[in-house]
Amino acid sequence: MRNLTLLTDFYELTMMYGYFREGKTDETATFDLFFRPFAESNFCIAAGLEQAVEYLENLRFTEQDVEYLRSTGAFGEDFLRSLADFRFTGSVRALPEGTVVFPYEPLMIVTAPICQAQLIEAALLNIVNHQTLIATKARRVCYAASPASVLEFGLRRAQGPDAAIYGARAAVIGGCTSTSNVLCAQTFGMSPKGTHAHSWVMSFPDELSAFKAYADAYPDNCLLLVDTYDTLGSGVPNAIKTFDYLSAKGGKPVGIRLDSGDLAYLSKEARKMLDAAGYTDAKIFASSDIDEYVLESLRRQDAAIDIYGVGTRLITSNNTPSLGGVYKLCNLNVNGADYPKMKISDNPIKMTNPGVKTVFRLFDKATNKAIADVIALKGEVIDESKPLTLTHPTERWKTKEVTDFYAKDLYVDAVIDGKRVLEKKNVYELQRDCAASLDGFWEEYKRLSNPHDYKVDLSDELYRLKDKLIREERKTVAK
Amino acid sequence: MRNLTLLTDFYELTMMYGYFREGKTDETATFDLFFRPFAESNFCIAAGLEQAVEYLENLRFTEQDVEYLRSTGAFGEDFLRSLADFRFTGSVRALPEGTVVFPYEPLMIVTAPICQAQLIEAALLNIVNHQTLIATKARRVCYAASPASVLEFGLRRAQGPDAAIYGARAAVIGGCTSTSNVLCAQTFGMSPKGTHAHSWVMSFPDELSAFKAYADAYPDNCLLLVDTYDTLGSGVPNAIKTFDYLSAKGGKPVGIRLDSGDLAYLSKEARKMLDAAGYTDAKIFASSDIDEYVLESLRRQDAAIDIYGVGTRLITSNNTPSLGGVYKLCNLNVNGADYPKMKISDNPIKMTNPGVKTVFRLFDKATNKAIADVIALKGEVIDESKPLTLTHPTERWKTKEVTDFYAKDLYVDAVIDGKRVLEKKNVYELQRDCAASLDGFWEEYKRLSNPHDYKVDLSDELYRLKDKLIREERKTVAK
Repeated sequence: MRNLTLLTDFYELTMMYGYFREGKTDETATFDLFFRPFAESNFCIAAGLEQAVEYLENLRFTEQDVEYLRSTGAFGEDFLRSLADFRFTGSVRALPEGTVVFPYEPLMIVTAPICQAQLIEAALLNIVNHQTLIATKARRVCYAASPASVLEFGLRRAQGPDAAIYGARAAVIGGCTSTSNVLCAQTFGMSPKGTHAHSWVMSFPDELSAFKAYADAYPDNCLLLVDTYDTLGSGVPNAIKTFDYLSAKGGKPVGIRLDSGDLAYLSKEARKMLDAAGYTDAKIFASSDIDEYVLESLRRQDAAIDIYGVGTRLITSNNTPSLGGVYKLCNLNVNGADYPKMKISDNPIKMTNPGVKTVFRLFDKATNKAIADVIALKGEVIDESKPLTLTHPTERWKTKEVTDFYAKDLYVDAVIDGKRVLEKKNVYELQRDCAASLDGFWEEYKRLSNPHDYKVDLSDELYRLKDKLIREERKTVAK
Repeated sequence: MRNLTLLTDFYELTMMYGYFREGKTDETATFDLFFRPFAESNFCIAAGLEQAVEYLENLRFTEQDVEYLRSTGAFGEDFLRSLADFRFTGSVRALPEGTVVFPYEPLMIVTAPICQAQLIEAALLNIVNHQTLIATKARRVCYAASPASVLEFGLRRAQGPDAAIYGARAAVIGGCTSTSNVLCAQTFGMSPKGTHAHSWVMSFPDELSAFKAYADAYPDNCLLLVDTYDTLGSGVPNAIKTFDYLSAKGGKPVGIRLDSGDLAYLSKEARKMLDAAGYTDAKIFASSDIDEYVLESLRRQDAAIDIYGVGTRLITSNNTPSLGGVYKLCNLNVNGADYPKMKISDNPIKMTNPGVKTVFRLFDKATNKAIADVIALKGEVIDESKPLTLTHPTERWKTKEVTDFYAKDLYVDAVIDGKRVLEKKNVYELQRDCAASLDGFWEEYKRLSNPHDYKVDLSDELYRLKDKLIREERKTVAK
């Protein structure tokens, strides 16, 4: 783990110094990390918590870090000296990775001395925004590809090494079966996937000798890229000749890969040629500028593709390359007394929810499918034995009574008093957790176009607190 | 420097093993790293070479790496054992960082034993694609903001830590004056920028006491965020009160920052209020979903903004979050004989240029402005004493005669026989190199909308080689 302690915006440090000067170091702040409505998807898949926790565990200002900060001239000596002993001593409750999460529901709830809570804002957002973005995109791509599977192939177009490594991790949580990225696979205990490139074929005098050499090297894993020269004219026929050569030696062909051209047409023609040659088990892989929309079109055309390699558009979340997660103060505790805080804005979408909160997901007892989420104040209890009236977060006349439900608090403790308590899970466990979370939703919420609106309401108690704070604030501003 | 040796696609390793098995380890390959026409911009700003060279210098398979590769079952023992001694022993010629580069012009030209040249494909593309993408976006943003300056503020929305750190580096090469990202600033010797957040204001009983506390902490660098509650109703008036308080104590206000709302209107009103209070020197900073298009609109509205903080849309290259750089075999040298290679495709845009090449930029002697670029074979000489006929790369009837020009070979040696020879430069030197490269072009090529087409032609010698290879290939396929 690299030391990412200075992976912060400078203003976090100037504010820390400000709090230090003001003697506010004993105040305990709670921040919510959440996103507002996201153009790309009605919900997201939470990801990045593991790296966020590792980052918190490793927070240390080295001597060089302190020296560098001294050189900026922005900080007093007392403060700089105090940094040597700086550790994260706060607590984090969070949505487990793989959880379906809706706008305004905190992905992480950080409670810590205000200086600490402030320092970590930018890095937590960086880590969680990125991985949640890519896990969400992967969920969409895998949904559109199903029942074909999806491999993550985006290393060369990712926004730097971390975007490739952690993006591929998030993609697997969201449903990809593996990645071509060897460092990612090594780091997270996966088996990397891949075959050969056009340059392999071009480095031989002709395509057939390139294919045979590859078959010799990989008799049990012979997957041939057939589009270097002419897919149907030479690539597939040479692949079939190579499979014959391989079969005669007792090897077993895996299949072919298409990487350009009209994938729908080429895959169907290639399927016919492979089947006619007796290779009905040979798989057809395809890659080439694929995303969920291309996949829906390929499905409509009955493309004969078994496995997709998805690169650029997944690893960058091409259409919407950022998730606008924010980190907002929701409570200050001073000398044991709580002061709920919220951002008041002329723009209702930018209003935040005050207080230390939790989120309940209500499931129907008969179907085990989610009915609605309720953002509540921490400590509130939902009585499952009685009907519950849900109320729209702003349109309070919109209500709905639910019965025969059970309520699940979605959060786990990730860090308590600076100590990690989050269970370490393999990416495939997280992938299963994600599949289970998705399985709790009707298809209507999961389809890619115009999904049904899922209800995320505020508890009456939270609503009353928010309303009170807004009215108080408006009175103050009026003065 | 982290060990990024396994930051590669798995197929690079399976191909390496294939070449090893085939006894091709003595063959020397040359690969061009280049991009095809890019939707976002008619030209790019080359960036990332420094990190690419550091990556090559640090290529080592650790024991754990070899053990991991062994565990995949894809490689023979001889090959695995050979990896312990693996070093990059090849050579790299490259466009210096900050250079204006057009489609099909190689950013890097790698000549190395084929196994080495293959292994490094994905990591070089990852590094160079990313930084070139962001430097290019930064150039556009800074062009639109000028004469206002631009700070990079994207850490929290970048695609992971590296995207933030190296993206901010590239943004500074492309013209940003600094970054808020402290780790980036520390790594590359810059002074990080920033002030305070809404949470600072919210953690105090009221805005004025928050501002005064900040002024006490930063008497010489007092920049106040004025939009927490009501920009013109409370933020700017409280900032002015704080500046009065500060001035009385001998401090000097820097200015205010707007982070939401209608920046054109608010900045003009705030300017009037500051001027009326005597703070004509106070600067107005603005941030909030800014990109080059927003900047052009703000300029049209005479927004009174001196310095922009640009985050999400710059650090992700929001509209086009990937540069489609590729790495293509252009030459094989076997036993001292050269075999130029090219990718033949039904899609002309995917055709590559064969042979070991260089690029000349022709400048007009009178104006020192660029006339055209010529992609040529390495070793070709351009005789500046005679008129030169430029010919369109595919439309050969389109010619243009140039006279009174000088020709500049754009490349530098970055690595020779595995040894770094690239001069290490500070980011601000690279920023100046970029400004100088841009200064070599007329405005017509640099404007953001519908820029004039810049000529990038092939030398006659390169054209003849390419034509010959295409004709030979078509004959082979016809057989």
